Amino acid sequence: MVLTDIEIAQQATLTPIKEIAETIGLVEDDLELFGKYKAKLSMEKINALKSNENGQLILVTAINPTPAGEGKSTVTIGLGDALNRLGKKTVIALREPSLGPVMGIKGGATGGGAAQVLPMEDINLHFTGDMHAITTANNALSALLDNHVQQGNELNIDLRRTIWKRVVDLNDRALRKVVVGLGGAIQGVPREDGFDITVASEIMAILCLARDITDLKQRLGNIVIGYTYTRQPVFVRDLKVEGALALLLKDAIKPNLVQTIEKTPAFVHGGPFANIAHGCNSVLATTTALKLGDYVVTEAGFGADLGAEKFLDIKVPNLPKAPDAVVIVATIRALKMHGGVLKSNLQEENVEALKVGFANLEKHIENIQSFNVPVVVAINEFLTDTEEEILTLQQLCEEKGVKIARCSVWANGGAGGVELAKAVLSEMEGTSKEFSPVYDVNDSIEEKITAIVQKIYGGRQVHFEKKAKMQMKNFAQYGWDKLPICMAKTQYSLSDDPTLLARPKDFDITVRELVPKLGAGFIVALTGDVMTMPGLPKTPAALNMDVDSVGNAIGLF
Amino acid sequence: MVLTDIEIAQQATLTPIKEIAETIGLVEDDLELFGKYKAKLSMEKINALKSNENGQLILVTAINPTPAGEGKSTVTIGLGDALNRLGKKTVIALREPSLGPVMGIKGGATGGGAAQVLPMEDINLHFTGDMHAITTANNALSALLDNHVQQGNELNIDLRRTIWKRVVDLNDRALRKVVVGLGGAIQGVPREDGFDITVASEIMAILCLARDITDLKQRLGNIVIGYTYTRQPVFVRDLKVEGALALLLKDAIKPNLVQTIEKTPAFVHGGPFANIAHGCNSVLATTTALKLGDYVVTEAGFGADLGAEKFLDIKVPNLPKAPDAVVIVATIRALKMHGGVLKSNLQEENVEALKVGFANLEKHIENIQSFNVPVVVAINEFLTDTEEEILTLQQLCEEKGVKIARCSVWANGGAGGVELAKAVLSEMEGTSKEFSPVYDVNDSIEEKITAIVQKIYGGRQVHFEKKAKMQMKNFAQYGWDKLPICMAKTQYSLSDDPTLLARPKDFDITVRELVPKLGAGFIVALTGDVMTMPGLPKTPAALNMDVDSVGNAIGLF
Repeated sequence: MVLTDIEIAQQATLTPIKEIAETIGLVEDDLELFGKYKAKLSMEKINALKSNENGQLILVTAINPTPAGEGKSTVTIGLGDALNRLGKKTVIALREPSLGPVMGIKGGATGGGAAQVLPMEDINLHFTGDMHAITTANNALSALLDNHVQQGNELNIDLRRTIWKRVVDLNDRALRKVVVGLGGAIQGVPREDGFDITVASEIMAILCLARDITDLKQRLGNIVIGYTYTRQPVFVRDLKVEGALALLLKDAIKPNLVQTIEKTPAFVHGGPFANIAHGCNSVLATTTALKLGDYVVTEAGFGADLGAEKFLDIKVPNLPKAPDAVVIVATIRALKMHGGVLKSNLQEENVEALKVGFANLEKHIENIQSFNVPVVVAINEFLTDTEEEILTLQQLCEEKGVKIARCSVWANGGAGGVELAKAVLSEMEGTSKEFSPVYDVNDSIEEKITAIVQKIYGGRQVHFEKKAKMQMKNFAQYGWDKLPICMAKTQYSLSDDPTLLARPKDFDITVRELVPKLGAGFIVALTGDVMTMPGLPKTPAALNMDVDSVGNAIGLF
Repeated sequence: MVLTDIEIAQQATLTPIKEIAETIGLVEDDLELFGKYKAKLSMEKINALKSNENGQLILVTAINPTPAGEGKSTVTIGLGDALNRLGKKTVIALREPSLGPVMGIKGGATGGGAAQVLPMEDINLHFTGDMHAITTANNALSALLDNHVQQGNELNIDLRRTIWKRVVDLNDRALRKVVVGLGGAIQGVPREDGFDITVASEIMAILCLARDITDLKQRLGNIVIGYTYTRQPVFVRDLKVEGALALLLKDAIKPNLVQTIEKTPAFVHGGPFANIAHGCNSVLATTTALKLGDYVVTEAGFGADLGAEKFLDIKVPNLPKAPDAVVIVATIRALKMHGGVLKSNLQEENVEALKVGFANLEKHIENIQSFNVPVVVAINEFLTDTEEEILTLQQLCEEKGVKIARCSVWANGGAGGVELAKAVLSEMEGTSKEFSPVYDVNDSIEEKITAIVQKIYGGRQVHFEKKAKMQMKNFAQYGWDKLPICMAKTQYSLSDDPTLLARPKDFDITVRELVPKLGAGFIVALTGDVMTMPGLPKTPAALNMDVDSVGNAIGLF
C-alpha cells in the first residue's frame, strides 16, 4: 500500500527545531519559537549574519508544467537532503503555501512522499501567521483609503481609478467583483472593488523582496494605490500609513525555519504569485540561508521561462549573489505530453513523443545557459518511465552537452537525490563566467519586454495594445520605466497561448496592459487574463477535513 | 512627567514565559511557545488538568460606563497582582483585544499604567493568531456557502435570507454593506452581504464557550447560516464543513499565557462582543486558570447589567463553578457623570452629584446580590478625587452593607490593590449561599427576556415588535427556545436609551428582533441598532504608528 503524503508526514519523528538550528550554528536565543517545531529568526540575528560569507546557491526550476506534474518542490527538498547526506552543510529555501487552495483542491505545497518539509499540517494551515499579517496590512490600507475619501478626500483620489484591491487567503470567487460602501452617507462611499487571494497582494511581493525593515517601509510607501481626478498617481506615502503597515509586518518579515523529513534545515518564507509577481520565497530567507549554509537549494515558480527568468532578473539584484547552478526538473511523462501524448496514454512507452517534447526542455536549457549559469537536468522519475525512455532523454541531454541525473526523491528521499547532488556539485566546480541578465534595467519598457520575448520565449515580436502603449508613455513620464519587468503569461507554454506545447516558433506576444508595482519594484506586463482569485470546486477538499479530540489534522491531504 | 502605557510596558523587564509557567506548576512540555514571552497551553495538558481541584473565582465588573472611564481591565490585573503579593497563588483571565480598534483610536485593551499584561505590543497586534484563525474560519464558511449555491444549490438556500456575514479584524465601514458575486455567471451568484469585525463573529462566541474540540465541532455544526426557499433553517452541518472549520481553529482554541508587569500569570484568550455576544474570555481559559491557581481574577465586558449578567447566565453553565465573589469597579468621576456632571467639569468636587450618581452603582450591587454572590465595590482612584468624595462613597456603600475598597493599581500596581484584595478575601470567607441565576433556561423566550428586564435593568415591561413576536413563535417551533438570552442593549444605561443615566425608572424595553446563535448556544435579543463594524476616525491612530529598524513598535499607544 502506498502511503499518502500526510501519512508519511505524520509517521515522521520530528526533532525539536532548536536542535535543527544548532546544526547551522544558531542558538536558542536567535530563535522565536512557534511551538516545538517551527521558529522565526530574530531580526537581531538576521542583521548580525550579514557579514558572513555566502554559500553556493542552487536554483531549481522546471520545464513548462503539464497536467502530468513535475515535482519541483519535491526535487528541491530531496536535493537538499541529498547534499546533506554527502556531508555538505545545506539549507533549503522554499515558498510558504497559501491556505486558500488547501481548502479547495487536494494537494499542498510542502513537497511529497519522502521529500517533505514538516510539520506539513501547520505549514499548510496558519503556519506562523505571515499570510494573515499580509492580509491584515493589505486590508488596513484599503480601509484607510476608503476612510480618507469618506472623511473629505483631501488627496482628491478618484475612486473610479483606484488599483488597490482587498484580499482574503481563501478561494472565494464571489469576492472577485464586489461593490462596497453601500448603505448611505455614514457607511462609506460606494465604489467598485474586488478581492484577490492574499498571495497576489503587492505586499506579499514587497515582503519577499525587502532586504530589511527600512527597505520594507520604503517599498510600502512606494505602492501606487490609484490616481487623482487630475490623473496624478497616489502613493501609500501620501496617506502616511507606511509606518503602520510596516508595524503590522514586523514579524512576518522574519524567515521561518522548519525541517525536512531527513532533518535538513529549511526556510519556508513568503510565496508571491508567479504571474503578476515574481514567484520566489523571500530575499531574506534566501540571503539568511546563504549566510548559514555552505549550499542553499531554492526554487522558482512555474516553468523556467517565467520562474527562473524572474528569479534571475528581479530577485537576484536583491540577493548577495546570483545562482552558482540551476537544476531544470523534467519528467518523462510531462515531456511526452509536450510531444503530443494525452494524459490518459502517459503510461505507455513513447520514445518518439519524448523526442518531440524534448524541444521544450532544450529551450529552457539554452535559456539558462544564456545567463552564463551552469545547468543540470533532473529526471524526476515515475514508476511508468521505461529504461528506453530514460536512456533516450539522457542521450538527448548529452548531445546538448548538458549533465542529466536520475532522481527518485519522492520514493527514496535524499538517497534518491544523490546522483543529482553529485552532478550539481561537479558542475559548480568549473570556472564561473560572469552572470548575464536578459536585459539592462535602464532600457525602455518596450526594449525589456522585447528582450524577454525574443531571448527567453523564442517569440518573433511583441504587439502592444493601445492601453499598454499609452501606459508606456505615461510610465516613462512618471519615471517608472527603469524597473525590471514582471511578465504575466500562461505557465503552460513558452508562448502566450497555453495550447502551444514543446517549443513553439514564429509566434508573437500581445501585451494588453501594464501594472505599476512600485513597492515591489517592477512593472507587470499582462499578456492575457490573469486569475488572481481562484474559486472552489464542486466538492471542496474542506468537506473531507476534520480534527480529532486532541487536535490532530484529518483529511488534510 | 507621566509615562504612557507603552513606555511603561517597554521599560518593564519580562521574565521568560517558561519561568512564569513554572510558578503555577507547568513544565516546558506543557507549552507551545510563541517567542519567549507568549505561549499556548497544549491540548494534552488542558485535558489532563480537568481532574484538578478548582480555585476561587473572582469576577470583576463595573457600573454603566461613561466617557470618564472605569478601568475594569486595569483593576482586574492589579487585583491579581495584589493577591499574589499577599502570597495567594493567583491567575488572571482576560479577553484578547481586536486589532481593528487599535488602528483606529488610541487605546488598547491590556490594562494601563502599572497594571498591564505584557508584551502589550504583541497582544494588541497579531498576538498568537487567534483572531486571524477565527477570521479565516468565518470567511471559509462564507466561501463554502457561496460556492454551494454557485455549484447548483442542492440545499435550496435562499440567498436573500442568509444571516451569515463575512468578517475582517479591522475597522472598515465601507464593508458594512456590500454586494458580492458580481461579474457574470462564472464569478458567483450576486447577493447582498456585509462584513462584521471579527470579534462579532459567532465563531468567536463559540470558541469562547466551547469546553473542548469535540464541543467546538458540534457547536460549529449548529450554526444557522440562513434559510431555504421553503423557510427551513440551514445549518453548517448541512454543508458538512464543521470538521474543516474546527481544523482551522485547532490552535486558536488553546488558551494563551502571558504575564503582568508584576509577573502574575495571565491567560488572555478570546474576546467576543459584549452586545450581540457574551463579552467574556474563553471558558477554556477560565477553567484552566481555575485548575492552576488558588484564585482566579477575570472580567466581563461593559457594565454589570450586560457583562456580569451574561457571565452569570450564559458562561457560568459552561464553567466548573460560579464566581465566589464579584468586584464592581466604580470611579468618582463616572458616578458624578451619572449624577449629571459634564465631562468638562469632572475635576471639580461635587458630592451632591456623586450621591445622585450612586444610584447606578446601587442597582448593580443589588443585582449581583440577587445572584447570591458576595460583592465588593472597588473605587478606582483618580488624582482629581477629593477625600470628601471618597468618604461619601464609602459611607453610601457601608449604609448599603457592602464592602468598599480604595484601589490605585494604575499608579501603584499590585501595591495599590492590596486593600481591595483583602476585602475580597474576607468577603469570600463567609458561608456561601447557592448560586441563583436570573431565569430558568427552560422558560419561554418572552419570560426570560422579561426576567432580565425587570430584575436586572429595573424596567417595567418588554415591548416585542412584530418581527420579534413572529420569531418567538418560529423559534419555539424549531425547538430553539430553551437557550439562554443574550441581550444586545446600549452599555451606557440600565435602560435601552443611552441618555438615561444613574438608575432610570418606569421605562420599557423594546425588542426589535431575535437572532439565533445556536452554535454559541444563545438567542440574541436586539433592542436597537447594534454596530458590528466600527469605522475609522478622521485621523486614525495608524497615522502615528511606525516600527524601527530592529522591529520595535512606535506610536502604538
